[in-house]
Amino acid sequence: MAGDPLILHEDPVSGNCYKIRLTAAHAGTALERRGYDIRAGETRTPRFLAEINPNGRIPVLQIGTRFLPESNAACWYLAEQAPEAGLIPTDGFARADALRWMFFEQYQHEPNIATLRFWRLGPGGEAGLDAARRAQLPAKRSGGAAALALMEAQLARQAFLLPQGFSLADIVLYAYTHVAEEAGFALADYPAVRAWLARVAARPGHVPMA
Amino acid sequence: MAGDPLILHEDPVSGNCYKIRLTAAHAGTALERRGYDIRAGETRTPRFLAEINPNGRIPVLQIGTRFLPESNAACWYLAEQAPEAGLIPTDGFARADALRWMFFEQYQHEPNIATLRFWRLGPGGEAGLDAARRAQLPAKRSGGAAALALMEAQLARQAFLLPQGFSLADIVLYAYTHVAEEAGFALADYPAVRAWLARVAARPGHVPMA
Repeated sequence: MAGDPLILHEDPVSGNCYKIRLTAAHAGTALERRGYDIRAGETRTPRFLAEINPNGRIPVLQIGTRFLPESNAACWYLAEQAPEAGLIPTDGFARADALRWMFFEQYQHEPNIATLRFWRLGPGGEAGLDAARRAQLPAKRSGGAAALALMEAQLARQAFLLPQGFSLADIVLYAYTHVAEEAGFALADYPAVRAWLARVAARPGHVPMA
Repeated sequence: MAGDPLILHEDPVSGNCYKIRLTAAHAGTALERRGYDIRAGETRTPRFLAEINPNGRIPVLQIGTRFLPESNAACWYLAEQAPEAGLIPTDGFARADALRWMFFEQYQHEPNIATLRFWRLGPGGEAGLDAARRAQLPAKRSGGAAALALMEAQLARQAFLLPQGFSLADIVLYAYTHVAEEAGFALADYPAVRAWLARVAARPGHVPMA
């Protein structure tokens, strides 16, 4: 309901959580924040599983007494509640096209780039990974590079991911792309992506991750 | 635009393609179909990459001269164009909740269950997998089981994934869940999921995968 207090259950280092804060900033929506440490298992406690998310993951956007997991679903909710911000196109094809980039983000971009970043920022870094994770490195590196190459081709042709201009698709993909160096990717190899990152960061209402 | 011819570029054995045909059936929308063999590389030819999808993947929904990759974005488009079918809830939270299950499907369900099925149905089956894929089997099995367990908990409490009733979320998750045995999962372990599969298949307008 309009007026329900909004609480973001998050880990501040997570790009999936940051994209919700960035959407809220563009939408002009206030969010209360509750922090959890993923690496310390704080999203797997019996209380978290019972009360916040049985899937044991963050982010979760709490709207009054209701809970919405999945970062891109939370971004969609906030953007739809603030139509004046124009983050979701009104044309049906363009709206589906925004979702196309958001599903691409969760299927091809986040599982490679965000996961590599999470592993590299962890204790011991890449050298400290166990054999199972080390075996996944080549596939994650090539998958992440393919995701960045697809964005590069699109952004070499137009200023933002949708031809209509800045949208929720840009917000969602900005989150982990702007820290892709921390995942081991050289953004110098993707000049159109770098120029787009600067355009997104220069938008009125932008807030940084930290 | 309304009236644009709709062409589904697909591989008939893909659940991601089937979910678009199932959405179209419920929406009462006619689709022309063009078949490609993924294993034969037919979605990686220079012509496919240039004309259909630079990402080299199917399904792609062609709407007139425009192309929409990502299965769940295509389902969303078709469902929105047929509001009388009621596949997308009108309430804002419920709409985001449908997207929550659709993002869960692409992030936690499809990469485990669909990928295991694809590997097992391939030449040589599971025994013929290379070392890199074999190393991923335990994580994909436990990830797929966790996805089915999350659905089981939800469907033990209510008839469909959303409390409002049958929606696009059910269509999208039906596609690979109903063939999860082909991925090596025993659906007998998930009785609420099995009962839900039967309810979805009994809906007016349902069409089978084959």
